[in-house]
Amino acid sequence: MSEETSILVGNKPSIRYILACLTAFHEGAKVVRVKARGRAISKAVDIAEMVRNRFMPDLKVKEIKIGTDEITVKEGGTRRVSSIEIMLERG
Amino acid sequence: MSEETSILVGNKPSIRYILACLTAFHEGAKVVRVKARGRAISKAVDIAEMVRNRFMPDLKVKEIKIGTDEITVKEGGTRRVSSIEIMLERG
Repeated sequence: MSEETSILVGNKPSIRYILACLTAFHEGAKVVRVKARGRAISKAVDIAEMVRNRFMPDLKVKEIKIGTDEITVKEGGTRRVSSIEIMLERG
Repeated sequence: MSEETSILVGNKPSIRYILACLTAFHEGAKVVRVKARGRAISKAVDIAEMVRNRFMPDLKVKEIKIGTDEITVKEGGTRRVSSIEIMLERG
């Protein structure tokens, strides 16, 4: 397990991503980056907060970045979508 | 107009909040805090990104904070909800 892991939050139930975070830290990661785009951004914040408040109170939010990604849509062409990256670090 | 203004993102159309940000900066604010809770978090990120990318490219994201608020619900009792605060600063 490398020192850093990224988890992309999507449509699965939140608990799946929470477990993925906890597993990554348990296996030795120092930093987990919780990433999301579009509507999943709110969910990513929920997940980061739940991991910290309920399971690992020693975690710190090292950095939060927001940005805009261009994604290719099925119909062709591109669409702009906001993104977030929350870096959780072991204390 | 004070140096700092807060804008709480809710259910209105995004353009309303974008205009509120632009107006605040136009009237002399140095910092605008874009705040949101729950599902509006994704919208707050969209708004901050649109203000920066489309209207005021000299703006910087000074800081982003996430947290958990306890809100009182109509039915009585409290519920926990995630929150975000995006600090936009004039360059």
